[in-house]
Amino acid sequence: MEMPRTKASTSGEVGRPDWSQRDKFRRWPTRRAPPKMQGLFTSRSHRTPALKKILAFVVALLVVPSVWSAEGMWTLDHPPLGQMKKELGWAPDQAWLDKAMRSAANLAGCSASFVSKNGLVLTNHHCVATCLDQLSTAQSNLLAIGFLADGQAGERKCPAMEVNRLEQISDVTADVTSATRGLEGTAYTAAHNAVRAKLGAACTGDTGRMRCDVVELYHGGQYKLYRYHHFQDVRLAFAPERASAAFGGDPDNFNYPRYDLDMALVRVYEEGRPITVVDYLPFNTQGPAAGEPVFVTGNPGRTERELTVAQLATRRDLTLMDALLRAAELRGTLTEFRTTGAEPQRIGENDLNSLENYYKVLQGQLKALHDPVVFEKKQADEAAVRQYVAAHPALAKKAGGAWDAIAKAEKTRRDLHQPLSLIENGSGFTNRYFAFARTLVRGAGERPKPDGDRLPEFNDSAMRRVEARLFSPAPVYPQLEQLKLTLALTQMRERLGPDAPIVKRVLGRQSPLQVAAALVGGTRLGDPAVRKALWDGGADAIARSDDPMIRLVTAIEPDARALRARYEREVESVEQKNTELIAEARFAALGDTIYPDATGSLRLSYGVIAGWDEGGVAVPPFTTFGGAFERNTGTEPFALPVSWLAARDRLDLTKPLDMVSTNDIIGGNSGSPMLNREGELVGLMFDGNIHSLGGDFAYDPKLNRSVAVNSAGMLEALDKIYDAKALANELRGQ
Amino acid sequence: MEMPRTKASTSGEVGRPDWSQRDKFRRWPTRRAPPKMQGLFTSRSHRTPALKKILAFVVALLVVPSVWSAEGMWTLDHPPLGQMKKELGWAPDQAWLDKAMRSAANLAGCSASFVSKNGLVLTNHHCVATCLDQLSTAQSNLLAIGFLADGQAGERKCPAMEVNRLEQISDVTADVTSATRGLEGTAYTAAHNAVRAKLGAACTGDTGRMRCDVVELYHGGQYKLYRYHHFQDVRLAFAPERASAAFGGDPDNFNYPRYDLDMALVRVYEEGRPITVVDYLPFNTQGPAAGEPVFVTGNPGRTERELTVAQLATRRDLTLMDALLRAAELRGTLTEFRTTGAEPQRIGENDLNSLENYYKVLQGQLKALHDPVVFEKKQADEAAVRQYVAAHPALAKKAGGAWDAIAKAEKTRRDLHQPLSLIENGSGFTNRYFAFARTLVRGAGERPKPDGDRLPEFNDSAMRRVEARLFSPAPVYPQLEQLKLTLALTQMRERLGPDAPIVKRVLGRQSPLQVAAALVGGTRLGDPAVRKALWDGGADAIARSDDPMIRLVTAIEPDARALRARYEREVESVEQKNTELIAEARFAALGDTIYPDATGSLRLSYGVIAGWDEGGVAVPPFTTFGGAFERNTGTEPFALPVSWLAARDRLDLTKPLDMVSTNDIIGGNSGSPMLNREGELVGLMFDGNIHSLGGDFAYDPKLNRSVAVNSAGMLEALDKIYDAKALANELRGQ
Repeated sequence: MEMPRTKASTSGEVGRPDWSQRDKFRRWPTRRAPPKMQGLFTSRSHRTPALKKILAFVVALLVVPSVWSAEGMWTLDHPPLGQMKKELGWAPDQAWLDKAMRSAANLAGCSASFVSKNGLVLTNHHCVATCLDQLSTAQSNLLAIGFLADGQAGERKCPAMEVNRLEQISDVTADVTSATRGLEGTAYTAAHNAVRAKLGAACTGDTGRMRCDVVELYHGGQYKLYRYHHFQDVRLAFAPERASAAFGGDPDNFNYPRYDLDMALVRVYEEGRPITVVDYLPFNTQGPAAGEPVFVTGNPGRTERELTVAQLATRRDLTLMDALLRAAELRGTLTEFRTTGAEPQRIGENDLNSLENYYKVLQGQLKALHDPVVFEKKQADEAAVRQYVAAHPALAKKAGGAWDAIAKAEKTRRDLHQPLSLIENGSGFTNRYFAFARTLVRGAGERPKPDGDRLPEFNDSAMRRVEARLFSPAPVYPQLEQLKLTLALTQMRERLGPDAPIVKRVLGRQSPLQVAAALVGGTRLGDPAVRKALWDGGADAIARSDDPMIRLVTAIEPDARALRARYEREVESVEQKNTELIAEARFAALGDTIYPDATGSLRLSYGVIAGWDEGGVAVPPFTTFGGAFERNTGTEPFALPVSWLAARDRLDLTKPLDMVSTNDIIGGNSGSPMLNREGELVGLMFDGNIHSLGGDFAYDPKLNRSVAVNSAGMLEALDKIYDAKALANELRGQ
Repeated sequence: MEMPRTKASTSGEVGRPDWSQRDKFRRWPTRRAPPKMQGLFTSRSHRTPALKKILAFVVALLVVPSVWSAEGMWTLDHPPLGQMKKELGWAPDQAWLDKAMRSAANLAGCSASFVSKNGLVLTNHHCVATCLDQLSTAQSNLLAIGFLADGQAGERKCPAMEVNRLEQISDVTADVTSATRGLEGTAYTAAHNAVRAKLGAACTGDTGRMRCDVVELYHGGQYKLYRYHHFQDVRLAFAPERASAAFGGDPDNFNYPRYDLDMALVRVYEEGRPITVVDYLPFNTQGPAAGEPVFVTGNPGRTERELTVAQLATRRDLTLMDALLRAAELRGTLTEFRTTGAEPQRIGENDLNSLENYYKVLQGQLKALHDPVVFEKKQADEAAVRQYVAAHPALAKKAGGAWDAIAKAEKTRRDLHQPLSLIENGSGFTNRYFAFARTLVRGAGERPKPDGDRLPEFNDSAMRRVEARLFSPAPVYPQLEQLKLTLALTQMRERLGPDAPIVKRVLGRQSPLQVAAALVGGTRLGDPAVRKALWDGGADAIARSDDPMIRLVTAIEPDARALRARYEREVESVEQKNTELIAEARFAALGDTIYPDATGSLRLSYGVIAGWDEGGVAVPPFTTFGGAFERNTGTEPFALPVSWLAARDRLDLTKPLDMVSTNDIIGGNSGSPMLNREGELVGLMFDGNIHSLGGDFAYDPKLNRSVAVNSAGMLEALDKIYDAKALANELRGQ
């Protein structure tokens, strides 16, 4: 899933539930995240005396000074070379960095890497789960049985998968800030959208092969233009059984030690042939050693380490809570639904897996915010920054009121939360037909406008992705969609109240089940051809359509747009503007020797292979194939697949399977390559430990660990379990 | 459901889910609740100068001084006569109070009242839902179709219902406090249990007709012995259809305006004949007027208005959250289960209704704790009391450390929460067979001990209720129990982790579903005769039993008892002792011109019939029969039953149906009578508005409202809809 680049979309793709993502972690639904604080305490040589004084005060205040070794998700054009040299005794040169950048692959919500000269791309099994689901039938469930292509000819196209490779980064800060200077509210938002659309369109061009994003860094402190080569023909080469890829299932998710072979291989094609790749990562056949420096590239989706205390409190007391309750109820519903037959079992699996992952992530995030140590540190950090600003009159005049302005906007966010989330972001209508209908109805209204005037999700630069999703031939299961829609409508009635005018308008005199059944039973939007015709027909076709889902979306469109407009005017633009002021104040004090919050763009993390101390017990960094057999109970989700059982005698049971490192990664990094100093692939990131779930808000080097599959383990499995010798040899460069 | 009178039971009856209660609201799972603060700001004439100073400071601190008109759940032997006189211009005399006390009926978790000289008792429909469920079959669902006895001979015995009538209150404070003086930890707990058991047993005697409770008031500031006449033969006379009793269903629950006929009539028998009642409440045929003073008797289960800030924070950040997530998931599961057939639809209804009510209550409570106004007031109140204590050296020496001691115990409560809740309180095994097995296994260990040495829930004084529940012939549905157990086991594995030794011991190499299926499939505890035989057979029979649920409970018994012991030693006894210190300090300052937190014992509330201002819109106090027809959509849960539709032309559509008053009530007050100054019944409490859900922690006279059925409305319905003229005439005293 793409990072939400639309301005008001607080749940990524509208109508698509937050949890239906392929990546392991979840990003925050809000687009804006504000000022950066912990960097204030990192070691710097050119501090001003006033800052020094403040810092002394803060250190005294915190008692234990902050030590954040290995912390940071750095941009590839601004790596912390000095810090790496100091902590690891080694830092990369430009050639290493260039190769790291060009071997990285962006996989729409996941990360990946090129691993052979013939276009083979390595990512996680859970990053191709949607593809496996889409290629499955009632007779052949690829999630369950896995897939190995019979040579390149047998590789199967993933209906909705695309790969992007970053080719160039350029600075457009001046273009953006000059376009919005002096503007407020709606005018600010419009100008901001317009300049970004213009820059994106100019960069993308019309070859059909490039994609460009204006990436906002440091919360508006910098804007960079990222130019990608775009690949749309992606074919599945190998995926193990889910029983192996996700061995231990939800109970072991974010748990460690782990024994998962969470890998998959796809191949990128252009014009019907595998592409030729120059910068790819050769597999290291041994895997890394304990304590060895390792590096991760990838697309961490979103961190919110810079939120103000007021913003954090809203998340803690309202939005996270609400999302958790909705998820818990849907989890019960889906779990019970799946017990009603073999087909419900199959069609509900992917949704449930995504949902359970999301549910655990939310719990981890909320737990972090309920940890007094974390929250009190956030409060102290904020107080310190505000004191620094107060001590500098010019800064104080400009940015002194920023925190209070954000706090006021947060009050409005709380008031708006339910209707905005339910109506504009579609959580009151969660189902795929609604998402299609929203795209069709809104697209019909937006597409005739000049590019710069459109809602950002309908900019020319975004159009290819919009159409890819809209025309995807992936199957839609009416029974499952009706289930989700019934619950969503029930939750909407509950949250807005049965007497709310929009609830009365949507439900009339019927129950949520009756309304959902009529909508799902009546819509023809499950057919991609119907969607294509409505898209091509534009506003006239929409106006003439009697499809009940189109009519529903049309009916609520004025309410939805009004909510979005109010959100943009009173929350988003206010927070964006004041967040930029805080960022500016920080740059004045600290420069950019700090890393920006994650935004879904390519980043580099450094660290070492290391376990951790869990309440006095040392957790070792590696697990082995032998450990997997020990943990096997034969019962789901602790049942190894028969391929493993059959291969047991052939395997080297002492070979490493999974491992942990100190790399600072987060949702979106799923599928990221782990590199060694030689630029070889030594691992494949697929998870974090339970402590990493607080990483949205803070990184703790003592406890935060990321979890990876070992390169030697992948080769062992391909060779001896899956008889995938051709692929294994290709990975070895043979 | 009874209030938990056991010391460590943090969820009422062990193994019984918190939500499976008949009353409208939910009580707090913890037994202890600490010091009282808001009373500090009520007007008093004999304040000390130091207190005056503190109060001036506090009032300044709060900016808006606290005004708590109509607040309070007062004991019948200590009503706030001066305050009532001042606020209402009227106060009851002793005869009025005596009659109010003896006409009140305690209905095991609900409230009720005697309303005819022939033993007729009025309560809520939702308070007899379990009886209706138990008297239903697959062919005849009394919850759906209602019930009207064909004369007294047709009244049907409710298998598990009992009625208690309070006869006497006596003070035993000196007995209790002298028994525990100077003791700590386990010794304190044992002595406390023993003296209460002894007092209870001596009072109960052996006539089989009395029941006695030692009631703790002001958190240990007072102990009173409440002596009840106990009636075990309770028969159903009338209940409307659930579609009328709970019109609007979950969406309208805690909503107002309302149109519910949430009433039921049962009759109390002794020796096969209806009892003769002297003190009963005659129906007022007109109902009360707007602004009229009204009074409510009943058994509010639990308020926690006196918790320390540390205790409130645990609820906000951990226990309420956790309970909500478990409930949300089960709600999804049960809702989906009920769609799978007519029988699942029926057998899951009662559980789901209770659960949805509980879920809404928890949300309301958490919302109150997330309200900065509420929480900041609690903090300011606590600071004020602590400053008062600090200003008085003798008090400071004795009670100055109490808050910190409680805060430390709360840290342990957080650590213990999951295992204690899952293992000892049984939320990891939620199902009725487990509850039976726990009673059997633990009872076999406890019953041979001297009364004073037993766990309190097995004291002689409690034994009748234990046996009534254990031998109840109410049906148990294996399919439903397996569903709940599967989810509970899954939640246990999730919360304790798959590697926790007790999880491994319970699940072995199987999945939660497999284990649940084996336990539910194998147990014979659904048969009351099997339970009776095991109970009578004692420890030998338990040791010999191969019933899988008995074996499971036996296997986890050492863990469960160890958790309870640690909880009692490090949390409960510490908080009890320090809470008593705070109560003592408060008595020194304020005397007892304040009301004690609710404890499930009989209380009196005063107030007036009044609507409220909802965000600028005046909500009127009364609704009418005509309003019900206007709200009827014909679709569940807004579908009036056919009996109403048929009676429409006969009804006076302007007659009042429901109404709101300012009475301060809470869960346990369901079924409470509303009295006028003449001691007539003018209403039947069945709910609170949405603002009342914060009443666990604070009462706000501007917004808190309780919801009642109007006496005139009840008569109108009995006369014209249900053709229940004999009952209506009996209520009119004709």
